[in-house]
Amino acid sequence: MNITTPSKITVRKIPSSRINEVNFNSLQFGSVFSDHMFSCDFKEGRWQDPIIQPFGPLTISPAAKVFHYGQAVFEGMKAYKDDNGGIFLFRPEQNFKRINKSAKRMAIPEFPKELFFDALNEILQLDSEWIKPGIGNSLYIRPFVIATQAGVSASPSTEYKFMILLSPAQAYYTGDVKVVFSEHYSRAADGGVGFAKAAGNYGAQFYPTNLAREKGFQQVIWTDSHSHEFLEEAGTMNIFFRINDTLITAPTSDRILDGVTRKSVLKLAETLNIPTEVRRVKVSEIKEAHKNGTLMEIFGAGTAAVISPISTFGHGEKIFDLPVLEESYATMFKSKLMDIQYNRSEDPFGWRYRVL
Amino acid sequence: MNITTPSKITVRKIPSSRINEVNFNSLQFGSVFSDHMFSCDFKEGRWQDPIIQPFGPLTISPAAKVFHYGQAVFEGMKAYKDDNGGIFLFRPEQNFKRINKSAKRMAIPEFPKELFFDALNEILQLDSEWIKPGIGNSLYIRPFVIATQAGVSASPSTEYKFMILLSPAQAYYTGDVKVVFSEHYSRAADGGVGFAKAAGNYGAQFYPTNLAREKGFQQVIWTDSHSHEFLEEAGTMNIFFRINDTLITAPTSDRILDGVTRKSVLKLAETLNIPTEVRRVKVSEIKEAHKNGTLMEIFGAGTAAVISPISTFGHGEKIFDLPVLEESYATMFKSKLMDIQYNRSEDPFGWRYRVL
Ligand SMILES: Cc1ncc(COP(=O)(O)O)c(C=O)c1O
Ligand SMILES: Cc1ncc(COP(=O)(O)O)c(C=O)c1O
Repeated sequence: MNITTPSKITVRKIPSSRINEVNFNSLQFGSVFSDHMFSCDFKEGRWQDPIIQPFGPLTISPAAKVFHYGQAVFEGMKAYKDDNGGIFLFRPEQNFKRINKSAKRMAIPEFPKELFFDALNEILQLDSEWIKPGIGNSLYIRPFVIATQAGVSASPSTEYKFMILLSPAQAYYTGDVKVVFSEHYSRAADGGVGFAKAAGNYGAQFYPTNLAREKGFQQVIWTDSHSHEFLEEAGTMNIFFRINDTLITAPTSDRILDGVTRKSVLKLAETLNIPTEVRRVKVSEIKEAHKNGTLMEIFGAGTAAVISPISTFGHGEKIFDLPVLEESYATMFKSKLMDIQYNRSEDPFGWRYRVL
Repeated sequence: MNITTPSKITVRKIPSSRINEVNFNSLQFGSVFSDHMFSCDFKEGRWQDPIIQPFGPLTISPAAKVFHYGQAVFEGMKAYKDDNGGIFLFRPEQNFKRINKSAKRMAIPEFPKELFFDALNEILQLDSEWIKPGIGNSLYIRPFVIATQAGVSASPSTEYKFMILLSPAQAYYTGDVKVVFSEHYSRAADGGVGFAKAAGNYGAQFYPTNLAREKGFQQVIWTDSHSHEFLEEAGTMNIFFRINDTLITAPTSDRILDGVTRKSVLKLAETLNIPTEVRRVKVSEIKEAHKNGTLMEIFGAGTAAVISPISTFGHGEKIFDLPVLEESYATMFKSKLMDIQYNRSEDPFGWRYRVL
């Protein structure tokens, strides 16, 4: 499903690669960047001047609207390499659709599909050495759009910059993930921007997440802002609950991100005849299931960690430990997803997208 | 109440002022900037290197967290000049407190008070020519903080930049302001960041405001996200209702910005023996009051326009026009506030702060 089009992207290559300066065995997520970056400007009503150039600083007005009004959206995807040097993306058209859905909600002009895929293909081929083979290794891809017009009046920008950055990532073992169910703070409002990958949604979570960390939890599971009775999602993952053998997750809404990993897990579950329920999940129901021993697992699903099993959840002053399972859904879904991502299995759903 | 401290601010002056290039009679709000800007960096755990230098572009990593996670807060204030060349701020300690309140919620380190005031005093003295005398003319002041650490992982930045930009502004006649009461979209959640001047709160309003504009309204009056039954505030103004002679406004909360203009209006009303009620205001109550002829006025209150009388409100498919009053509260509060701001009257509450 490669989209082949005559690319109009200007390419300015780095004189010599920085790759030898990088220790691929001790990467901190999101802190090292590949040789090149893609950018394209929106001005005079259209996207123009697409260019791939060496990764480096931007020159931008301090009055750029992104700094003042958070008019910015992003995506998160990964490129995977198989043992033959093949390079793959996982359902990238989902990310393409989502960045434009996010953009629309933030009054940002949509980015053209052809250019999105051309840019990805070109930059990934250019920086293909930055993708290391081996399960868990990947190149994290960060497409994003920022409002660049200079002006401190609260109205949509007339100028934007779309960019793609690439950051090599290792398999990351998240360890025992302890989460707390939110009782006071919230992530999104009905009629708000929670469903969008709008920049401000993430900064707004830092403070409550810091408070959770001080109490020994790594992440917050957000609940609805009105009653805090319904479990929604984590900061960068959708959340699944397994009660007996049934897999349960909250429906997407204007508060909850429509995760690619989430929908892929649901699809896999369907073909594996695992009963699934997409419905609102009450905090009290999960506590009850824990009490009577039917709560088997909770796990998060998102591009960064694929699947993160949760070992403990907190609510109020109480701590609830989850059993350690021999055969968990979490492990099973994780390996099935990664087998598809790394070209180690069949791809019955057409989820793989070959770059090279 | 000037805070005099030995300033440690480095000053790099512009070789020759750009002021003669500017037509002060046709300023578009927030689009022209004065000769200088202030900046100060947070790194290694402290604010350092405060500098005033010519206004100009920043050099910043495309991976800076502000672009990806909207970790940014701002303030809006004005400097006013009287006919003797005196320069004044209006209750600047309120803005100082509020930027740090916003910062805390966004996991941004607080900025030191002394440096905030030193920076304001120095830059305003340097660019004092940019403040024109005459009622309505002012220099809009935009302090803000952005997360500058390069990194595409969703966690608080370790580095920040605090800046102050100055933009000359004219009296702006907002004309007939038509507003619509929101029925679907919302601005803030309980437990969210609505009370903070967090950048993302503003970008999130652009799309619903565009939809309102298409229907002929300039602004949206946000309602609570849960029921849309209670009126909260506008995009950059708090909202007051006058029923008979009583002035009513919503209480501040974690969804509503604690506006300086709002609290000043409430204080003035108190001393003028105008009955005030700070309580939740129902959409149905306002419609009812309109019907029975007791709804006299609605106006917005905020630094930019001071007081904006509202001529019309819409709800659902209905349009409600407000009477044109001979002696409106809006006009009265506006002139009382401006008299204090421009040093034309007594200052019984100690609201004026003299810069020069
Ligand atoms: C808020 C939020 N929820 C869930 C997810 C998981 O989505 P995906 O599986 O598409 O990575 C993400 C990450 O992108 C996210 O930011
Ligand atoms: C959301 C919001 N409400 C109200 C106001 C009015 O506040 P102030 O009177 O302090 O300018 C502002 C502007 O600062 C605002 O951004």
